[in-house]
Amino acid sequence: MQPAIHPVIMSGGSGTRLWPLSRKSYPKQFVPLAGETTMFQQSVARFAGPGFAPPVVVTNADFRFIVTEQLAAAGVDPGAILIEPEPRNTAPAVLAAALWLERTDPEALMLVAPSDHLVPDAAAFRAAVAAGRAEAAAGRLVTFGIRPDRAETGYGYLELDGPPGADGGARPLRRFVEKPDADTAARMLAEGRYLWNAGIFLFSVRTILAAFDAHAPHLTGPVRRAVDEARADLGFLRLAPAPFAEAEDISIDYAVMERAANLSVVPYDGGWSDLGGWEAVWRESPHDGAGVATAGPVTAIDSRNSLLRSESPRLELVGIGVENLIAIAMPDAVLVADMSRAQDVKQAVAALRARRAAQATQFPVDHRPWGWFESLVTGHRFQVKRIVVHPGQALSLQSHMHRAEHWIVVAGTAKVTIGGEERLVSENESVFIPLGTRHRMENPGKVDMVLIEVQTGSYLGEDDIIRYEDVYARG
Amino acid sequence: MQPAIHPVIMSGGSGTRLWPLSRKSYPKQFVPLAGETTMFQQSVARFAGPGFAPPVVVTNADFRFIVTEQLAAAGVDPGAILIEPEPRNTAPAVLAAALWLERTDPEALMLVAPSDHLVPDAAAFRAAVAAGRAEAAAGRLVTFGIRPDRAETGYGYLELDGPPGADGGARPLRRFVEKPDADTAARMLAEGRYLWNAGIFLFSVRTILAAFDAHAPHLTGPVRRAVDEARADLGFLRLAPAPFAEAEDISIDYAVMERAANLSVVPYDGGWSDLGGWEAVWRESPHDGAGVATAGPVTAIDSRNSLLRSESPRLELVGIGVENLIAIAMPDAVLVADMSRAQDVKQAVAALRARRAAQATQFPVDHRPWGWFESLVTGHRFQVKRIVVHPGQALSLQSHMHRAEHWIVVAGTAKVTIGGEERLVSENESVFIPLGTRHRMENPGKVDMVLIEVQTGSYLGEDDIIRYEDVYARG
Repeated sequence: MQPAIHPVIMSGGSGTRLWPLSRKSYPKQFVPLAGETTMFQQSVARFAGPGFAPPVVVTNADFRFIVTEQLAAAGVDPGAILIEPEPRNTAPAVLAAALWLERTDPEALMLVAPSDHLVPDAAAFRAAVAAGRAEAAAGRLVTFGIRPDRAETGYGYLELDGPPGADGGARPLRRFVEKPDADTAARMLAEGRYLWNAGIFLFSVRTILAAFDAHAPHLTGPVRRAVDEARADLGFLRLAPAPFAEAEDISIDYAVMERAANLSVVPYDGGWSDLGGWEAVWRESPHDGAGVATAGPVTAIDSRNSLLRSESPRLELVGIGVENLIAIAMPDAVLVADMSRAQDVKQAVAALRARRAAQATQFPVDHRPWGWFESLVTGHRFQVKRIVVHPGQALSLQSHMHRAEHWIVVAGTAKVTIGGEERLVSENESVFIPLGTRHRMENPGKVDMVLIEVQTGSYLGEDDIIRYEDVYARG
Repeated sequence: MQPAIHPVIMSGGSGTRLWPLSRKSYPKQFVPLAGETTMFQQSVARFAGPGFAPPVVVTNADFRFIVTEQLAAAGVDPGAILIEPEPRNTAPAVLAAALWLERTDPEALMLVAPSDHLVPDAAAFRAAVAAGRAEAAAGRLVTFGIRPDRAETGYGYLELDGPPGADGGARPLRRFVEKPDADTAARMLAEGRYLWNAGIFLFSVRTILAAFDAHAPHLTGPVRRAVDEARADLGFLRLAPAPFAEAEDISIDYAVMERAANLSVVPYDGGWSDLGGWEAVWRESPHDGAGVATAGPVTAIDSRNSLLRSESPRLELVGIGVENLIAIAMPDAVLVADMSRAQDVKQAVAALRARRAAQATQFPVDHRPWGWFESLVTGHRFQVKRIVVHPGQALSLQSHMHRAEHWIVVAGTAKVTIGGEERLVSENESVFIPLGTRHRMENPGKVDMVLIEVQTGSYLGEDDIIRYEDVYARG
């Protein structure tokens, strides 16, 4: 039997080109952008089943509980979740995953894939992975090249010796080509021997470690120490911050791939997109006859070639006579942009950030180790939140200097500690937490516990919190 | 001393051309569309001060508490608030106001004005009213003609014998001209003796009653009975439904003005708009150098000739590279429309109504006689509301079949009746209303009382209410 392939799912990025749906605090891989599940969940599901080991997820501390929540919702038990102490681009991340896998099996094959790409036909892509397996096992660095269907200037390309054959077999890579201008892209499309670089790789642990040693030996020391000194924490493997910070901030392409000679390309003929902007989302979404793609409760009248998305079931979006328009509606932020300017969303996010609008970076829902909460309304001296605590989870034992809290349980059962006393609070019961009193909220049950919290006081910021005990070891 | 002029403010209309800001349940005259106060408040303020009696407001039952709330907020004590039992257009409404004024002073002058027009220079318009006073007192039907600054096809026109003079004095009206086509509008603009018909009239009670008798005698009987049999109710004068329903549904223009011979026109040279669509709002709003008008938290990048409005301080609207676009963002509804299609908003509202979207007609905030409420979140078996009760007001004594309620007072003081007991609940205190228990909420204080209500139960509709006593005499 062949050794299993270990998927290494890279999910630490936080792009803003799909703002307002993708924000720094909750980026696009964690959002249901196409279909019912999120891009991250789809990426994990794509490389699961016979022949695949449980996934290794590489992410950062901010996203770790989003990752565990989304894996749990998908019923996936990960092989490991590696936490990058700070963003250092893809080379240190891949190297850390390889070093972690080396401990158990240096002959293992690993498949490195981003978590925010769209691949509608997962089975076809798994077939491509299978087609690269023998080359990878034989010591090649295998990458996957998407057969282009347009002269795209937004992607890098892979140059082959000639057009790929119909058999889908691996071919040697001639060279990487940077993002081209329009004329070059058109020529490459016509020539037929250039494929899009999807940034997906298959290789053995031994091969990639050798490649790092050969082409980026300065990375190996710091990253190996970061893995060796990593701290296990609630099922996460936190890479050691000090050595990891010494590793160069560099992509796997620059550090290794563009320098290596032993590269092969498996051509892929199916659909693929990095959804690198709203224009790409529009292109990949189902359209009506006039080129209008919609999501959510949208009414489109006499509109053409537009993407109209409402990201809430309670938010009606109406488009009348619009053309080449991107309109993304959320309850706290709305984007309208000409299709040709979709890439300038970054500029808008920078402008919002400059005037300290929370929407630049923050999602209205805040994910925590124990579940999530959202602010429903903020008024003079009061705030109302919906709080959801997952089964078996607990908030820290805490107190506040400036606010009292009323809790009303509307679903499930809460175990509440107030002062020295503990009691169960079930649906339709309420409790009051006086200002200054130590308190804790837990969900001892088997279903989510939902409560409405009404805060009153002179200062209601998240930072008015004194923690006495925290199962998640937060400060 | 001259007799005071009685402003008659028509505010029963509910247009949808400014959806989503203007909805059937809360139309544009009650919204702050230009400036801090609402169009209704601006209309009342425009005809106040020396020479004006307190306003007579004509509205319908649905809007009566919005009217009282907005008058109170503006510090205005009305002369009367007449409630139309059903919409019958402007002729019966004006006739009812005239008959009501006749009781106290048949020689009174009345100024009939819509509540949803924009007149930036109130003092200049009052000067125009003063210029028409002598003619009105002498038995003329005086209307006001706006000197056009463009070949507008959206308004009716008033034809004079020749261009109005510089003195601003009243001139005889030659005839009314229906909304013209573009060529006709251009010709009329060039000729200089055509003014826009603003639908604002000044006449004596005696004169208009005589005009009704002469030109629409069939209206007088039913409307006089509706006034004679009107019922005083909490400061409103509710016209009697049965006779009012017999009155023809017809505008004052068709019923009287276009048939009368004794019409004069006072020319008006200042700004005026009926804000009859989003294009008009864009035209009347301050623009940047590229023709972009914004309201609320809006970020406009490289955009041109567009109206970008966020109607909530907590909703960020971003426009990038858009041109000739209307974008109106609210937390529950967003409109994006090409400027040339702004008039087709009605079509969108009809589509929303067809699929029973609440946003077609309902505003997220619901006004009641005692104050207002909004739903903050609805979940499985629970709903959270913010409820604001004005000083001295009380909800009905009521009970619910399917829900229990938790109330948490976050501002002011509530007097709460539960079962047979009454008690005061102050800021930061809570009470629980078990399912089936009779209860009432009152605000005995001097400031608004704000509370958060958490409802739990199997059915949470507004119609699960049994009323035992109601100071507002609701069923």
